[in-house]
Amino acid sequence: MNKIEEYISLINSSLYEYVKLMGDEEDKVAEAMLYSLKNGGKRVRPMLVLEFCRACGGSVESAVPFACALEMIHTYSLIHDDLPCMDDDDFRRGKPSCHKQFDYATALLAGDGLLTLAFSVMAGTELPAETVIKAVKLLADCAGYLGMIGGQTMDLQHEGKQISLETLKKTDALKTGRLIYAACTLGCLVANADDEKFKAAETYAENIGLAFQIVDDLLDITSTSEELGKPVGSDEDNKKSTYPSLLGIEHSMEMVEELTKKAVDAVSVFGNDGQFLADYAVKLSVRTK
Amino acid sequence: MNKIEEYISLINSSLYEYVKLMGDEEDKVAEAMLYSLKNGGKRVRPMLVLEFCRACGGSVESAVPFACALEMIHTYSLIHDDLPCMDDDDFRRGKPSCHKQFDYATALLAGDGLLTLAFSVMAGTELPAETVIKAVKLLADCAGYLGMIGGQTMDLQHEGKQISLETLKKTDALKTGRLIYAACTLGCLVANADDEKFKAAETYAENIGLAFQIVDDLLDITSTSEELGKPVGSDEDNKKSTYPSLLGIEHSMEMVEELTKKAVDAVSVFGNDGQFLADYAVKLSVRTK
Repeated sequence: MNKIEEYISLINSSLYEYVKLMGDEEDKVAEAMLYSLKNGGKRVRPMLVLEFCRACGGSVESAVPFACALEMIHTYSLIHDDLPCMDDDDFRRGKPSCHKQFDYATALLAGDGLLTLAFSVMAGTELPAETVIKAVKLLADCAGYLGMIGGQTMDLQHEGKQISLETLKKTDALKTGRLIYAACTLGCLVANADDEKFKAAETYAENIGLAFQIVDDLLDITSTSEELGKPVGSDEDNKKSTYPSLLGIEHSMEMVEELTKKAVDAVSVFGNDGQFLADYAVKLSVRTK
Repeated sequence: MNKIEEYISLINSSLYEYVKLMGDEEDKVAEAMLYSLKNGGKRVRPMLVLEFCRACGGSVESAVPFACALEMIHTYSLIHDDLPCMDDDDFRRGKPSCHKQFDYATALLAGDGLLTLAFSVMAGTELPAETVIKAVKLLADCAGYLGMIGGQTMDLQHEGKQISLETLKKTDALKTGRLIYAACTLGCLVANADDEKFKAAETYAENIGLAFQIVDDLLDITSTSEELGKPVGSDEDNKKSTYPSLLGIEHSMEMVEELTKKAVDAVSVFGNDGQFLADYAVKLSVRTK
């Protein structure tokens, strides 16, 4: 088993353990929470929490609750994003989205439940209280209306409109960028890293965050729906402004390469301990789903 | 200005200050958050936080962020509860509910935003870190899928069904009871109260929580929609099992009286400092809206 698989296995087993089924009628929402957690993707965010913590000299184990909390928040955002009043997506990673598998109200509450559980999990850890509070504040701010939710709001405002590259970047920096930023810096926080390492984590996050979004847009054009597990070409159908539509495919691909190089450079301060992060940035940039 | 008005004024001004408008396009959700916060009711929960803190010898000021966080969570739950996929209520306290004033997606995100902001506000306080973490854990657990959300789930499962008194009590103990419990014990927590006072707060919470719900059900029968600011008779129209429908109006009123007496007795351990809480329990039991 390689390191990525080891991390995913650790994240998954921990994640599922946090949701307790009580064997009673109020379990429907817990079942929906588990359903969406189990339909997980690459676990990019929790993996970054664990690896930044390790690269900064911290114990991977101590970072697990924070990695799981972040993945819960990411998962809640996908459940709410898929709802009919938002993106109205019936599928998520090849399986029915939460509100299709269950129902609208259950999916709404499952999202609320995961968001709330994330904070309970963080507050339940045994790290120094000061560290936990900083982590709660960081994650709440990155996920909140001045962070991810602000990006979702901008996204809604832009529906059916052409927007500038600058606006697109600002939207994505909030909508997907802030949680990736939270992932990288949470790892440093748990490991009590110095300023130089925090700064490196921020630069890495900023660059892979944008690259990640450009690759997403490119895959919507170049991939097949079997590969992606969701319909392709939806951006073009929705006349959505994307990096390829604003910059062209070739220039977008060059940008991904450039951003990835910056991310790789940033983690050179970790020496050998930055190798996994460097390789991972490259891996994400050439992914096919 | 009497003490209740003073508390409400302190809660309101603090609450509105927490939501920053950036003067930009992502502000729509922040505006919706503010709209729903401003359409506030009796501020029962934050008032209980402040008064329990004071009665336990703590400073009211130090409890304000926790009182506000709790009210944000209460407000988010109302926004999501009013959505078409849940209770589908067009009015809340005589004004259009959030999704009617804005739109469905904005209301969804405003709820998410308030829930997330509650944790940011708590983590941003300057109390001892250990206290803040206990408060975060308490509130997350009371609001989560094993608390308030669990009660909302049970409520959904019961829709259109007759249920037993025992099931109704269990549902309400989660749906409304847990946040009232959180309010009373958060105040004690901030004031670093001893076990005897915590126990008294728990007993008070348990009794006024149930009484509050029974009065709500009674008002749905005996009040007018002008008085309540929302349609009355909706429980009967929806064939919902309520305390009056299961126990009769008279017996329900007796129960309210009995529960209120128990709450009043519980806070006698505070001596003179329990007087406001005793009076408040009575005030809530004879309210007309």
